Amino acid sequence: MKEINSVGIVKSKTFKCSDPIKLSCGKTLDNYDLIYETYGKLNSAKDNAVLVCHALTGNQHVAGKYKKTDKYPGWWDNLVGPGKPLNTNKFFVIGVNNLGGNEGSTGPKSINTKTKKAWGANFPIITVEDWVKTQKALIDFLGIKKLSAVIGGSLGGMQALEWNLQFPNEVSNTVIIAAAPNLTAQNIAFNEVARQSIITDPDFNKGNFYLNKNKPKRGLRIARMLGHITYLSNDVMGSKFGRKIKNKNFLYNFETEFEIESYLNYQGDKFAKEFDANTYIRMTKALDYYDPTNKNKKKLSEVFKKIKSKFLVISFTSDWRFSPSRSKEMVKGLLDNNVEVSYAEITAASGHDAFLMSDVHYHEIIKSYFNKAFKSK
Amino acid sequence: MKEINSVGIVKSKTFKCSDPIKLSCGKTLDNYDLIYETYGKLNSAKDNAVLVCHALTGNQHVAGKYKKTDKYPGWWDNLVGPGKPLNTNKFFVIGVNNLGGNEGSTGPKSINTKTKKAWGANFPIITVEDWVKTQKALIDFLGIKKLSAVIGGSLGGMQALEWNLQFPNEVSNTVIIAAAPNLTAQNIAFNEVARQSIITDPDFNKGNFYLNKNKPKRGLRIARMLGHITYLSNDVMGSKFGRKIKNKNFLYNFETEFEIESYLNYQGDKFAKEFDANTYIRMTKALDYYDPTNKNKKKLSEVFKKIKSKFLVISFTSDWRFSPSRSKEMVKGLLDNNVEVSYAEITAASGHDAFLMSDVHYHEIIKSYFNKAFKSK
Repeated sequence: MKEINSVGIVKSKTFKCSDPIKLSCGKTLDNYDLIYETYGKLNSAKDNAVLVCHALTGNQHVAGKYKKTDKYPGWWDNLVGPGKPLNTNKFFVIGVNNLGGNEGSTGPKSINTKTKKAWGANFPIITVEDWVKTQKALIDFLGIKKLSAVIGGSLGGMQALEWNLQFPNEVSNTVIIAAAPNLTAQNIAFNEVARQSIITDPDFNKGNFYLNKNKPKRGLRIARMLGHITYLSNDVMGSKFGRKIKNKNFLYNFETEFEIESYLNYQGDKFAKEFDANTYIRMTKALDYYDPTNKNKKKLSEVFKKIKSKFLVISFTSDWRFSPSRSKEMVKGLLDNNVEVSYAEITAASGHDAFLMSDVHYHEIIKSYFNKAFKSK
Repeated sequence: MKEINSVGIVKSKTFKCSDPIKLSCGKTLDNYDLIYETYGKLNSAKDNAVLVCHALTGNQHVAGKYKKTDKYPGWWDNLVGPGKPLNTNKFFVIGVNNLGGNEGSTGPKSINTKTKKAWGANFPIITVEDWVKTQKALIDFLGIKKLSAVIGGSLGGMQALEWNLQFPNEVSNTVIIAAAPNLTAQNIAFNEVARQSIITDPDFNKGNFYLNKNKPKRGLRIARMLGHITYLSNDVMGSKFGRKIKNKNFLYNFETEFEIESYLNYQGDKFAKEFDANTYIRMTKALDYYDPTNKNKKKLSEVFKKIKSKFLVISFTSDWRFSPSRSKEMVKGLLDNNVEVSYAEITAASGHDAFLMSDVHYHEIIKSYFNKAFKSK
């Protein structure tokens, strides 16, 4: 049975870019692959394209399934599809796995064509600015001159913002959800603990572990467990797990006594089997580095002068990773420049994770924003 | 030069308890040592004793120095001394390292008299209830029938509360600071990530590492780094560290780029050299287990019926580990039983760590509470 409003069965494609890219870190990649997916049809004017930027552990598989029996669809399937808030009957939606990624784009586990070995530790650190450059190369390749919209949540929101700073003439609408213009010290601190847990895992072997029997699963597991704490609000953890225990009585050992422990261990184990440790630490670095104010040398309102796109900015009340106040910083900078910006602070209990959920109010706002964007084309 | 208001040079003593203790976990310890310190003089009526309960990584060394050249005095030296808020000219103050501790009380690194080997993994899990039992044995040994006060912050506050539930007739005043009646799911989650980082460190060797060359420093380091994030508020991290960087420009590597990273790594390294991993994971377990409502079977107001002591409860506005709302739960339970309770919510930026700092307002409140307690004896 076909799932209602689903984009259906999808297939990833690969864009092989042979133009070298000079990275923020100073190094150059002579060529690279980007794995991507598209949903809906690019119209003849090629002005209905929407780029979806992914967050820390996301990828190009935004919607649909690869085969009917897949347990889960793409990570933003509740948002993207025919009749959904980002309506693929109207828009041509592009998902891409970022450079350095885990899913098929050139990254640490790819073969370095010069050495014929996996990059491993030698794969450079990639920044948000670099990603936007490579995404622009993909858009060019697809024959799109101007994006109807760029949309992203969390780290994806930073990329959506950065599109406006590097290519202000090539984007009409920008949707930034549960994001911040840069990380706080507390954000960086959590990232550093996650990185240190991976880097100090003896199986990490400085990042050169692909040929080894053991992968740095221990570190990745801790990093993911920690991540999950910051994705959920204190309140939702309380209502979901509270002090519920696994067994009738305490066992007084170091196995899981509480359901919240069980949940975190499960999430950590699952992730550690699937994700690449070298990619993970680089994704957190991209978050840390991003700062359009360039170490406070400029104010956001000054940086935003060049912006031409319209904006929708959304935050969630219980998101303590990227709190509403961080979204408001961006909104203020936009308003200072008379940018047409809509801002919604959604009352949601789920914390940062809310951006991936299908809260009716949240999705209605995105739907009407995209409807308006489509009509005004 | 003698430091002003210091208790001066102090020495730890050992209480060797030969009475067996039946622990919450079901196991029995036939005998145990508690290392403790005292400051001030026990009066002839033996009614001026104040027990200080320590938190996660604290110990018996509350005030003074062991020798003049010690870099730092005891961990609550700003509170305890002649003329200080907990005035040793008036009170006989007792600090004790809890059972299972790191500093000389019987714990995982002690020799099990039966096996003649270090306890290691076999050392039982100790609870707040167990600690209070052993503290009572120490108080008995010192010839004290009733404590003038019991005081503690964080996990120490839980012990102060528990004294009132096990020995309601043996305590006149209770001071609970930056504590909670039990942990939230988020609190437990942070503890579990810390424990997993230690337990999965290959050098942990299931807790039997004392004879090995390598100790589980990696795991302990991650646990401590994570701890420090939760001790500080988001705001104070922002004002102290913000996005300050270590070098003039980014290095784009995995060394420390930001000052907050440097701070956390330093704290982690320092702690991992000093603290016992087996003690650490047990201390976090004691936090997790404590719950006077016994898995929500009883309400706090019901549990508190037996309480006879007067209370001072203090919380700090920016403490997100044990927020003021958690203190208020205790205050409500006390008021429901017409207990004489003073409550102060101190405006402080430092987060949970504020309980160890010498905020004037905070210390004045403790000082006047103890002055009143002394006069009413």
